[in-house]
Amino acid sequence: MKLYSHEVSGNSYKIRLFLSLLNLDCEIINVDLIKGENKQENFLQLNPLSQVPVLKDKDLVLRDSQAILVYLANTYGNDRWLPPSGPEMALVMQWLFTACNEIARGPADARLFGKFHFDIDIETATENSHVILPIINKHLQDREWLELGHPTIADIACFPYIALSHEGGISLEPYEYLSHWVNRISAMPNFVPLPA
Amino acid sequence: MKLYSHEVSGNSYKIRLFLSLLNLDCEIINVDLIKGENKQENFLQLNPLSQVPVLKDKDLVLRDSQAILVYLANTYGNDRWLPPSGPEMALVMQWLFTACNEIARGPADARLFGKFHFDIDIETATENSHVILPIINKHLQDREWLELGHPTIADIACFPYIALSHEGGISLEPYEYLSHWVNRISAMPNFVPLPA
Repeated sequence: MKLYSHEVSGNSYKIRLFLSLLNLDCEIINVDLIKGENKQENFLQLNPLSQVPVLKDKDLVLRDSQAILVYLANTYGNDRWLPPSGPEMALVMQWLFTACNEIARGPADARLFGKFHFDIDIETATENSHVILPIINKHLQDREWLELGHPTIADIACFPYIALSHEGGISLEPYEYLSHWVNRISAMPNFVPLPA
Repeated sequence: MKLYSHEVSGNSYKIRLFLSLLNLDCEIINVDLIKGENKQENFLQLNPLSQVPVLKDKDLVLRDSQAILVYLANTYGNDRWLPPSGPEMALVMQWLFTACNEIARGPADARLFGKFHFDIDIETATENSHVILPIINKHLQDREWLELGHPTIADIACFPYIALSHEGGISLEPYEYLSHWVNRISAMPNFVPLPA
């Protein structure tokens, strides 16, 4: 198995974290985004969207960090990370789209501006962050994990860009339950440190 | 089964289309977004993110159109709409995140500006559209459907906002294969007309 990854990419980190939690061996191939390796023909063959991460497992070439989490959980994890069907699977699944939408347009975009000086509307990203973070904070008020009472890929999908919020100028200080949840994930066995 | 929906919402339409393709009975409850019914306490109990669609099926309350597609396919569809596991499931899944990310930030955002006068950066949405649409167009050059050689929820997830691109000022005319694919979906038995 090969993961095409970049070390400061939160989405790449998401997969490196989950690989570690699953104790899976995987060759990590660094794609130098600064040098534009993701725009070169051999990478575009893997992912025409020119984004990391990409997972290659035998004949499968798979883009998108959330889709990769689903594949790894389903193929190599146990049913606790992602139940195979029914309401429980659906409840976990909805958070993967929250990661892909509200968290991406909130703290992840804010980080692209704050840390990497991307041409991002930081006002909108900050506003979006302060819409979604209180909602998740409230959800976690009486829960240790996002769904099902134990860690699932919902937690893994949402974790990186929330934990890295400060890099986009978003403080988690007002969000007590969210901060506890970040600490809870950071204390898991085989946890991988966030990108520096 | 109940679907909380709004008639011009492309994400609500996505579910109404799939319910029809699956021949499923479902009570459609209109949430009046203009009157702000989605911000009222009884709706926020269903979805604190204040968005339609929301599906209620027995005890399950599920937000996010993509998560709802996964649930319906997995629970009421056959394995052709969404294979239960393996590389084939993963290939379908990746497009659900393309719908949630690149299509949402492209043609869907452009429509929010063009049709509903939302405060959206139309330049960015137009630019994003002309990044993702040619990629999907090229992908469809030698395929009738996005994955697996037959219709899956990948097609259903990506369809509405691509088919509605013109409402955001994005023409599909340069994208021949994409236009054929839109026509192919529109010709499916039990197809539901797009929001007017």
